[in-house]
Amino acid sequence: MNAFMNEDFLLQSNTARILYHDYAEKMPIIDYHCHVPPQEIYEDRVYDNIAQLWLGGNFYGDHYKWRLMRACGEPERLITGSAADYEKFLAFARCLPKVPGNPVYHWAHLELKRFFDCHEPLNEDTAPDIWPLCNEKLRSGLSVREILRRSNVMGLATTDDPIDTLEWHEKLAADPTFSVTVKPAWRPDKLLNIHKPGFAEYIAKLGDVKNMDSLCSAIRTRMDYFDAHGCTASDHGIEFIEPVSATQEELDDILAKGLKGEVVTHREAAAFQYALMLFLGEEYGKRGWVLEIHFGAIRNVNTTQFEVMGPDTGYDAIAPVISVSGLPTLLDELHTRGWLPKTVLFSLSPNDDAMLSTIAGGFQSEGIRGKVQQGSAWWFNDTKQGMIEQMTTMASLAPLDNFLGMVTDSRSFLAYPRHEYFRRILCDLLGRWVEKGEFPADTMRLGKLVQNVSYNNAKEFFGY
Amino acid sequence: MNAFMNEDFLLQSNTARILYHDYAEKMPIIDYHCHVPPQEIYEDRVYDNIAQLWLGGNFYGDHYKWRLMRACGEPERLITGSAADYEKFLAFARCLPKVPGNPVYHWAHLELKRFFDCHEPLNEDTAPDIWPLCNEKLRSGLSVREILRRSNVMGLATTDDPIDTLEWHEKLAADPTFSVTVKPAWRPDKLLNIHKPGFAEYIAKLGDVKNMDSLCSAIRTRMDYFDAHGCTASDHGIEFIEPVSATQEELDDILAKGLKGEVVTHREAAAFQYALMLFLGEEYGKRGWVLEIHFGAIRNVNTTQFEVMGPDTGYDAIAPVISVSGLPTLLDELHTRGWLPKTVLFSLSPNDDAMLSTIAGGFQSEGIRGKVQQGSAWWFNDTKQGMIEQMTTMASLAPLDNFLGMVTDSRSFLAYPRHEYFRRILCDLLGRWVEKGEFPADTMRLGKLVQNVSYNNAKEFFGY
Amino acid sequence: MNAFMNEDFLLQSNTARILYHDYAEKMPIIDYHCHVPPQEIYEDRVYDNIAQLWLGGNFYGDHYKWRLMRACGEPERLITGSAADYEKFLAFARCLPKVPGNPVYHWAHLELKRFFDCHEPLNEDTAPDIWPLCNEKLRSGLSVREILRRSNVMGLATTDDPIDTLEWHEKLAADPTFSVTVKPAWRPDKLLNIHKPGFAEYIAKLGDVKNMDSLCSAIRTRMDYFDAHGCTASDHGIEFIEPVSATQEELDDILAKGLKGEVVTHREAAAFQYALMLFLGEEYGKRGWVLEIHFGAIRNVNTTQFEVMGPDTGYDAIAPVISVSGLPTLLDELHTRGWLPKTVLFSLSPNDDAMLSTIAGGFQSEGIRGKVQQGSAWWFNDTKQGMIEQMTTMASLAPLDNFLGMVTDSRSFLAYPRHEYFRRILCDLLGRWVEKGEFPADTMRLGKLVQNVSYNNAKEFFGY
Repeated sequence: MNAFMNEDFLLQSNTARILYHDYAEKMPIIDYHCHVPPQEIYEDRVYDNIAQLWLGGNFYGDHYKWRLMRACGEPERLITGSAADYEKFLAFARCLPKVPGNPVYHWAHLELKRFFDCHEPLNEDTAPDIWPLCNEKLRSGLSVREILRRSNVMGLATTDDPIDTLEWHEKLAADPTFSVTVKPAWRPDKLLNIHKPGFAEYIAKLGDVKNMDSLCSAIRTRMDYFDAHGCTASDHGIEFIEPVSATQEELDDILAKGLKGEVVTHREAAAFQYALMLFLGEEYGKRGWVLEIHFGAIRNVNTTQFEVMGPDTGYDAIAPVISVSGLPTLLDELHTRGWLPKTVLFSLSPNDDAMLSTIAGGFQSEGIRGKVQQGSAWWFNDTKQGMIEQMTTMASLAPLDNFLGMVTDSRSFLAYPRHEYFRRILCDLLGRWVEKGEFPADTMRLGKLVQNVSYNNAKEFFGY
Repeated sequence: MNAFMNEDFLLQSNTARILYHDYAEKMPIIDYHCHVPPQEIYEDRVYDNIAQLWLGGNFYGDHYKWRLMRACGEPERLITGSAADYEKFLAFARCLPKVPGNPVYHWAHLELKRFFDCHEPLNEDTAPDIWPLCNEKLRSGLSVREILRRSNVMGLATTDDPIDTLEWHEKLAADPTFSVTVKPAWRPDKLLNIHKPGFAEYIAKLGDVKNMDSLCSAIRTRMDYFDAHGCTASDHGIEFIEPVSATQEELDDILAKGLKGEVVTHREAAAFQYALMLFLGEEYGKRGWVLEIHFGAIRNVNTTQFEVMGPDTGYDAIAPVISVSGLPTLLDELHTRGWLPKTVLFSLSPNDDAMLSTIAGGFQSEGIRGKVQQGSAWWFNDTKQGMIEQMTTMASLAPLDNFLGMVTDSRSFLAYPRHEYFRRILCDLLGRWVEKGEFPADTMRLGKLVQNVSYNNAKEFFGY
Repeated sequence: MNAFMNEDFLLQSNTARILYHDYAEKMPIIDYHCHVPPQEIYEDRVYDNIAQLWLGGNFYGDHYKWRLMRACGEPERLITGSAADYEKFLAFARCLPKVPGNPVYHWAHLELKRFFDCHEPLNEDTAPDIWPLCNEKLRSGLSVREILRRSNVMGLATTDDPIDTLEWHEKLAADPTFSVTVKPAWRPDKLLNIHKPGFAEYIAKLGDVKNMDSLCSAIRTRMDYFDAHGCTASDHGIEFIEPVSATQEELDDILAKGLKGEVVTHREAAAFQYALMLFLGEEYGKRGWVLEIHFGAIRNVNTTQFEVMGPDTGYDAIAPVISVSGLPTLLDELHTRGWLPKTVLFSLSPNDDAMLSTIAGGFQSEGIRGKVQQGSAWWFNDTKQGMIEQMTTMASLAPLDNFLGMVTDSRSFLAYPRHEYFRRILCDLLGRWVEKGEFPADTMRLGKLVQNVSYNNAKEFFGY
């Protein structure tokens, strides 16, 4: 029996252990898509205690943990509510033994090990001892920047609204004492959501928008601003991509409706979004930005809780229906125009892995490795099993050597050990193939592949 | 090599063996959803021979076995037809060696071991010896009640039409010599199927129904009757849940059409069903009943055989299209009204596991563990692989400790060893995680979890 | 650690090794669905070098390899372009180490071993030595017929358009020096694609077609011609099967539109296709032909490349939406008419495995084993993982003993080791079940099953 999460955690063969310890472990991290607040990096925030880091408030909290605690029947008071931080920590600790097989179990313990030198399983019995130990570490220098340093983060990209001032990115870039590259990433969901409340108010902030032309012009201005601040990637959370074509006049009419707050039909919204995705994709291509698309979520399924807590609080799900019939034509039209950007396709549902990877395979380009490719297993799919399946599928359909590897996609500064978790799973997968005689025991080549997937590919693809 | 199906069948690690033999094995069974006939329990039927139990007649037979035999090219005469029971048994026996990897293979042999003390593989060579051995056991006291007793069944719920008299449940409850709790469960599919033949005739049996109000009133009367007979669960076999809203007048018009036997469009049926599901869900919530939903089947794909044999004879399949776009809004509206019942979501397709589990995660409630949750792998998915995937997915997305565990969903009294099969797979999964160092070797906690999933959770959730 | 792809490649247990080496290995091959050119068999083509066999020109090339090379960023010149064959071979060789976990890696090395006695991993370092070694073998007698002989191919079916003259099949049948049965297979996609360009021109080649009656009559004539040339199977690549009914007059009108090159709506195309599938299915049934259906592909996603390179050049994908809602009713109507042919259902998406297998289960027939059944893992799904999942699913839902086993579906004469690859995976799967005690260690019965799936079943089902 292997000891619980020791140094060879998840590494079941000698080859796996060599690949991880000699090649993967020491590579820096490029976290090319995450949701950490740049202000806290600039201000080098020190958290008072581990509960604030783990359970926090609305924005900084961890909805993975919240969902598990709610499913365990814990009251909201002990999750996001008014209870004392220690009470919340205890509540989380007593839930942990109930979630074997859950990534939160592994993430929490990797975080305890890597940042707090704590190697005991966390549960209701050990929590009272672990609490002061963690908090002591936080107080003695484990600030946000120290967490980044200790995680060997070389660069990361936050997720930013087109109207963001990017002031903290500016300040970070100007700070000579801090060597981590913190890029903004362009997330224009609100530009596209013409069918949702708040569209008109949002567009008003962009400037004087009257029609598609002035909208595109206003967007270009903001893209130039992001570009000047080092942005190299966009990110889209998309509900549907349908190939609905419309004339410029029709699009202007649809936009006018949206700007007046009038009801926009599904078909009109789809036409507007498809046209805007074409415009944006072309602009990304011209700027050398990467297009990231995240498919397949439904948001805020619980209206009561949405009204109390707002978005991103643990009430999203995998959509029962996804509609990406327009994805191949979108990529195709961009390619025909000559401006298909580098593209990463993420899906929330494990069912979409193979479909996305095969579509990506039709849009490759000379001199770029994996120009369009499937992203790592995302969110609800970002589990040990989900990662194994995503990589097995990707390897079956594309050169695994191209893979851009892991992103935390996290709001938490403690999330970087997820890269370690991913790398261990990658090395174990490769090790298994070698041990079974399915791939040559050519450690040098495989080691290089591991380093590419762990770090080199993302560095090059996103221009860090 | 492990011996064939010995006492450590499916238990590949020491931890798995400890968890199964010390914790799971001795727990009683709550079979919270099955299709056995309560009359046979009351009358304590003694079957003449194993063929009657295994292949039986239309209602009591086992369509899993029938399908395999048909696929082996056996004539219907030897499956459900006029052949002598022994001939049928021989036909089944000669099919068995052709189905490695099929759950029927394991179920049949577990049944031979547990009820008939027969440990040889069944095939055309061994069948002549096994036949008299089984029948001797049946004659010497292996009645229906004895099967339940020997299986350590503490409680079960049959599946009953709202117009059922529940006479056998009444008699069973009044019988002081029998300690197994036999609850009815409310299965109102016919109430909802306004688009199918026989709707008007069925509704007429409910009472004087003129509009939605009188329909709901008639339904409430029947629910009170079920409630008085110990019912704590409803069960729905649903083809589609679409969020089609309609006014009370529109619904009355649709119902009137249905009652006149007129053609009801898909959209009208969807609106009627959605409204009725809201009504029913609220009533379940008020009564503390559990809402079970089974998705994704198409029924009676073979018309010729349907006309000869009727429903539930082995001609159903996984639907090529499922439409549950309305599931999140249904749960959400019930939650908003304050009467979301405890809910279990079953899917026939392994593709839906993650989607259902994430939707469930958005509707949890203080003080209840897993108020809305994914059900066990169902029917065509109720296989070793299907169970492993269902549990791995559920564990990845929710506390596995909440899981309500196994149901036989069976028409056969011999089906209870499927709980054993499930528990072995559960213990093996947990054991594997421990052996690989992915979870602490904390046998006490894991043992408790195993007991919860095997028995305690269902007992509490369904009020046995 | 197992040596790289040695004689026990993929055979992880003693049972697996016995099943493969004693039962599977020596069985001949029936490749019941492939795309090799019969002319080259008749002319017994000798390829100049391995690059021509592996990368070739447009028709004979291998789009699996092309896709990988494109994804590695190789220029088209080195893939399908004007570069020298040796340059192309080098480019492919340097891509190979980048694709662990890809079937192309295993296929290429099995081909090197079985045909060229080359046992080294191919990469940019070993390529210069391997190139002359392979070409020497080709020059010294490794012609197309010799490849077939050495692969122990007993029979194969090419894929042919209804208007094909079948001249090469005729010549092959008349050649007493050649013992491999080369059957034509009827692939009438162009007959069905009324909504695609070229339909009218294509139909004109069939004869004087004015309405559905004359179309059917013309088709029957061609079917008789194929029948006389030994055809026993049809094959359909289908985008959608929707149960849209139409009167004979409506169908005549839709056909008239198609013949005039007018725009045909999706609904009209669906109605036409559904009616024609019913006609064709009935004709297949009457002739004893097998109906093969391949679902779920979208073709030519990259328009620019399609215009340069034409179809089947590596720009197809798994469709984001598949619509086979009409499949159960199609099979049902054919069954009701009494002429449901033997049918094999292939899906491109691993998500469809269970659905197809359960639908197939509803249409079995006395005296035929697996009359309707799921086909082997297809194309993008034809990977180690895809095959394991397809067989595990099929075994869970049907008698594995019925399975028709592997088809190369390949344009390459070197592809036959894919049968070996498949058989090793099959034997390993069975071996694992035996070693774990999940199936009796009854090597004789399992060996027979292995031989059935490897060869006997296809031989009988397709009438070789």
